[in-house]
Amino acid sequence: MPRILTGIQCTGRPHLGNVLGAMLPTLELAAKPTYDTFIFLADLHTLTTLKDSQERRNYVYAAAAAWLALGLDPAKVTFYRQSKVPAVCELVWYLSCFTPYPMLANAHAFKDKADRMSMVSAGLFTYPILMAADILLYHADIVPVGKDQLQHLEITRDIATSFNQQYGPVFHLPQALIDNSIATVPGIDGQKMSKSYHNTIDIFLPEKELRKLVMRIQTDSKSVAESKDPDTCIVFKLYSLVANTTDIDTMRKNYTAGGYGYGQAKEELFATILERFAVAREKFAQYITDISNLEKILMSGEAKASVVATETLSTIRGKLGY
Amino acid sequence: MPRILTGIQCTGRPHLGNVLGAMLPTLELAAKPTYDTFIFLADLHTLTTLKDSQERRNYVYAAAAAWLALGLDPAKVTFYRQSKVPAVCELVWYLSCFTPYPMLANAHAFKDKADRMSMVSAGLFTYPILMAADILLYHADIVPVGKDQLQHLEITRDIATSFNQQYGPVFHLPQALIDNSIATVPGIDGQKMSKSYHNTIDIFLPEKELRKLVMRIQTDSKSVAESKDPDTCIVFKLYSLVANTTDIDTMRKNYTAGGYGYGQAKEELFATILERFAVAREKFAQYITDISNLEKILMSGEAKASVVATETLSTIRGKLGY
Repeated sequence: MPRILTGIQCTGRPHLGNVLGAMLPTLELAAKPTYDTFIFLADLHTLTTLKDSQERRNYVYAAAAAWLALGLDPAKVTFYRQSKVPAVCELVWYLSCFTPYPMLANAHAFKDKADRMSMVSAGLFTYPILMAADILLYHADIVPVGKDQLQHLEITRDIATSFNQQYGPVFHLPQALIDNSIATVPGIDGQKMSKSYHNTIDIFLPEKELRKLVMRIQTDSKSVAESKDPDTCIVFKLYSLVANTTDIDTMRKNYTAGGYGYGQAKEELFATILERFAVAREKFAQYITDISNLEKILMSGEAKASVVATETLSTIRGKLGY
Repeated sequence: MPRILTGIQCTGRPHLGNVLGAMLPTLELAAKPTYDTFIFLADLHTLTTLKDSQERRNYVYAAAAAWLALGLDPAKVTFYRQSKVPAVCELVWYLSCFTPYPMLANAHAFKDKADRMSMVSAGLFTYPILMAADILLYHADIVPVGKDQLQHLEITRDIATSFNQQYGPVFHLPQALIDNSIATVPGIDGQKMSKSYHNTIDIFLPEKELRKLVMRIQTDSKSVAESKDPDTCIVFKLYSLVANTTDIDTMRKNYTAGGYGYGQAKEELFATILERFAVAREKFAQYITDISNLEKILMSGEAKASVVATETLSTIRGKLGY
């Protein structure tokens, strides 16, 4: 049974972009009986940007609660915190000795981040090796990725190939799974929704705060009476990602007809988010207020993950003479 | 009680340069009751250059046997293989997020190696972080180093300082201990004795092979009759590092007097090495033929080291929110 593996950084609470762009599509795959699914909270990766301990704990629990609220079944999925299987760090060292330095130095993501950040750390540089270790430690066959992560998957395959050439077929070569049907979710400012841009919509917020966020979505300054272009409007774009086709059509007509204001559109978007994620929101509220239950669920996943990790590491150590 | 920590790479069997330049001076310090001494076999570091598993095992056991043969008392010293306390790799990840990328990119040792090696790996680049983790994991106060390692110790202090500034005084700031009285040991070609130069004298070899090595020491082509300059002769230099002062004086006179050939000098050097290391050679032969005993000794040290490592990591995880 091919193994699918997904990790999501938790440098903030999960937002609509995460939910629609990664979490729900992954859970759809996980629901198929043909896959063995590993989902982990990439909390080690977050140290490259997030240094506050309490924030880290909060975000990790929020991410765990969100996955579970959205339908992750911990009996079927191996669900764990990356940091609780520290074997991955040992594998990072081994892999780093099979990773050409220039391959990392020339990675797009590193260059982009290095340009944006004031303190470029060694961790930011070796980030792709940690990602490779995440994948290779668990013998993942399929890794759902966005296009921006394709190069990191190539790096993973290169490292694995270099190791396998010297020691035999130890590592599975993971395949990238790119779902082109997944639309990019715009943030409230129209850029791609991302924690780094501070433009996210956190669908698990209390109603009042969530409404405020939706009301802050940027629009042009057309009056209620005027006809509006749905295809350039962020509110409409977000609505079309969460509403059903009939309702989307109706809103499209309202936009072009005029006499329909952005305020009304935002109210409908808000109501639709509330409706679509009603169950998830309720479950989230339950999970996030019962940390000991979250811990129990995660620890059980970490025990399962550790079994695989220990076996892989034992093979690697043998091959390397440790 | 201040803690002294030393690790020696085992990319080959220990040679006279290691013995005189690092191992005996460290054991002299370890014998002082004022120090708590940690000595480890840096077998993770070796992966940057050594990929063969059987060679790695052989070198690790040879290094362990050599330390013990030279007088390391495992009841007093915490003696362990680096790889058997993999917590150090977890610490590497944490530290890497507090290590400025340019600090590593500009490190002398990295630049030197990068110039010499065809495949420069990421492991070679992050090498100083692994060294920092070795030191900081065990709260070492004093690290005996050669001048070539001074920058790595500065890097260690910088990383520790950066961490401590954010999370309070977790890490001890290690002091370098440079013993200027330790002479550089020349190899058989006159360059510094080093595995990388293939010019080493392995004092634990069987007599016949050891004699052959000594006979291969380079000299000029002066005849037996001619007067010779002791101060430019590698044989004399090596002799002066292992013989007693009376014998050194005698050889010096023989050199300048003439009528004394390099062959004779080499025979005296060989005999002196055999004599000076007679006990160590005998013990080494015993240790190296009883691997299960070596394993027992090392595992006992690894248990002691793990206690310290676990405690440190637990503190770090708490500070970082893991």
